[in-house]
Amino acid sequence: MDLLTVPTPRVVIDRARVRANIAAMQARARAAGVRLRPHAKTHKLPAIAKWQIDAGAGGITCAKVGEAEVFAAAGVTDIRLAYPVNPSNAARLIALMDRAKLSIVVDDLSVAEAWSAAMIAARRKLDVLVKVDVGFHRCGIDPESPRAGLVVRDIAALAGLVFRGLLAHAGHAYGARSAEELETIAETECAILRGLTTQVTGQGVEVREISVGSTPTARFVEHQDGVTEMRPGNYVFFDRTQVGLGAATLEDCALTIISTVVSRPAPSRVIFDAGSKTLSSDGVRGFGTAQGHGLVFPDLETTHPDPGIVIERLSEEHAVARVTPECPLKPGDRVRILPNHACAVVNLAEELLVVDGAAGGHAIADRLKVEARGRVW
Amino acid sequence: MDLLTVPTPRVVIDRARVRANIAAMQARARAAGVRLRPHAKTHKLPAIAKWQIDAGAGGITCAKVGEAEVFAAAGVTDIRLAYPVNPSNAARLIALMDRAKLSIVVDDLSVAEAWSAAMIAARRKLDVLVKVDVGFHRCGIDPESPRAGLVVRDIAALAGLVFRGLLAHAGHAYGARSAEELETIAETECAILRGLTTQVTGQGVEVREISVGSTPTARFVEHQDGVTEMRPGNYVFFDRTQVGLGAATLEDCALTIISTVVSRPAPSRVIFDAGSKTLSSDGVRGFGTAQGHGLVFPDLETTHPDPGIVIERLSEEHAVARVTPECPLKPGDRVRILPNHACAVVNLAEELLVVDGAAGGHAIADRLKVEARGRVW
Repeated sequence: MDLLTVPTPRVVIDRARVRANIAAMQARARAAGVRLRPHAKTHKLPAIAKWQIDAGAGGITCAKVGEAEVFAAAGVTDIRLAYPVNPSNAARLIALMDRAKLSIVVDDLSVAEAWSAAMIAARRKLDVLVKVDVGFHRCGIDPESPRAGLVVRDIAALAGLVFRGLLAHAGHAYGARSAEELETIAETECAILRGLTTQVTGQGVEVREISVGSTPTARFVEHQDGVTEMRPGNYVFFDRTQVGLGAATLEDCALTIISTVVSRPAPSRVIFDAGSKTLSSDGVRGFGTAQGHGLVFPDLETTHPDPGIVIERLSEEHAVARVTPECPLKPGDRVRILPNHACAVVNLAEELLVVDGAAGGHAIADRLKVEARGRVW
Repeated sequence: MDLLTVPTPRVVIDRARVRANIAAMQARARAAGVRLRPHAKTHKLPAIAKWQIDAGAGGITCAKVGEAEVFAAAGVTDIRLAYPVNPSNAARLIALMDRAKLSIVVDDLSVAEAWSAAMIAARRKLDVLVKVDVGFHRCGIDPESPRAGLVVRDIAALAGLVFRGLLAHAGHAYGARSAEELETIAETECAILRGLTTQVTGQGVEVREISVGSTPTARFVEHQDGVTEMRPGNYVFFDRTQVGLGAATLEDCALTIISTVVSRPAPSRVIFDAGSKTLSSDGVRGFGTAQGHGLVFPDLETTHPDPGIVIERLSEEHAVARVTPECPLKPGDRVRILPNHACAVVNLAEELLVVDGAAGGHAIADRLKVEARGRVW
């Protein structure tokens, strides 16, 4: 079985590109003097977390306790849950603390008090960071609130918790329309966190860590004075959105879908066997005018997409593409699709097929089961 | 563990409602004198397929060979692949024919010829139906083409294949803006298939089956003269879109997500722990003006949603809801969410928690692993 014969659709990663992406981000973190703690939500794979740690990553980031359980069981020993984990999960977290150094984020004093009580009862100390809203307006304390510094001070004073510092995610970076806007978002994130640090330091609170993270803003980290840690996730594979945001080139993209043409019902329409259950329904983001549900490479390489093939809509198991009448695609032909959002694609897949770059041709070198997939609770 | 204590988010089905939905659709098929062949893509669960078959379903429908392999291994003996399966899968299909009666659809003479050659070589006979485009403009032969009847005739004449009839899916029903428009779509579907049947019957081709299927159009089946089979899938659970299309009431909906409030960062904003990796990014459809990523029931029942809670956007593991300042939700509170699209939600889940209707309270009666999930190839 190789990529020309394996039943499709299948998610394929290029190991050479994954390794290169890991090395490049690690080099960037090292140059900036910050710890790299990759978000494992993108790959959900202990094997790839190990590649990241071997390259120098200082632990990993997870979103959910269920994911952390999988990575800890596989031997990852330093896990940050960059999520406002609810204290109803205290027993699971305490059990995990036997296996890995854990930290969580809080953005609510009453939640932090519940964590404090749970840790006191268990005679444990849990590392916490306070999540700060730097403009995404999802979770996080409002740094402009007159109470912001007081909340940090009160959380830092709770027994059973060890206050480590401040953490943010500039998720609004994905809505940026230019590189300048992205840079402003990164600068603002950092300025907000520095400002809050100054404020609470004046109240006697020690801020040992300032953690930021997103793949689109990662390239500005060396200008983010005061940052101690970055947590990008998507960079391990990149995707069409990251290309659209200037964070990657097509040649950096390490994850694609091999798909077969199953119908050519009209001269202007081609149907691929990859639908929303493979590609997800996530749209594309970026500075440009990219549209549709993935970029199609009709020659199975990943250098020359055909912009004349536009995946206009998805059913669960079909991609409906508009093509020019001259497009030669016919049933049985295989294409490669660069997805809009790699994290969502991995989360739908049972396993990733591994190829070894151009040198490996179409041979399947390995198969990796997406072990932490579906562990969202 | 019950729904008040199980780690969240979790997908829950109400067994009493599932059974009632199965019985109601079976009664409808029986009254109309058509075979019910439910599409198993919605549940991907052999146990639920068995409930459907025990209730009288004449086999099941699958989209992909990988799904059919799972259901056949679990003992389902009559499977229709309502998908233009590419002949590159011939060896797998032939292996499956030892376990189950199989049929596929074709919409292309050259593809049918390849299937014919594969079956002749294997000394097998494969049942085929011709897929007809009744207005969805995805797959299917164009019934208005002057060549439509000839293509059916030529496919029906191929050795190694047994021509069974015509098959359609009126997927554009999901875009209908009124019950009248839905009914017109169902009538048109049927008229097109009857017209093509008349045409090819005149050429000596016997059309033994006319198969249609979608949950929104299912309620018109008794008026669809000539139809022999219906293939709805979603009806087993229903969802917010089906309510919007008048195909179900809230009390029919059998699948919901139990989710926990993880943050209340502002008076107007609540964050739930279910994001696009649980709810999918699929939007809502229907006649009305429903918006957002699911309907929220703050009291854990499924009768009185709070229209003041609007899930405006999803991250991978967060739902960001707009609420009124009076909304009492706080971290740790649990809600139930009716998703926009149940098929996509099941496809993201590892397992479904089973409860036994109102009589069962919040007790978890069973857990069902979504066995055919991810088997898209």
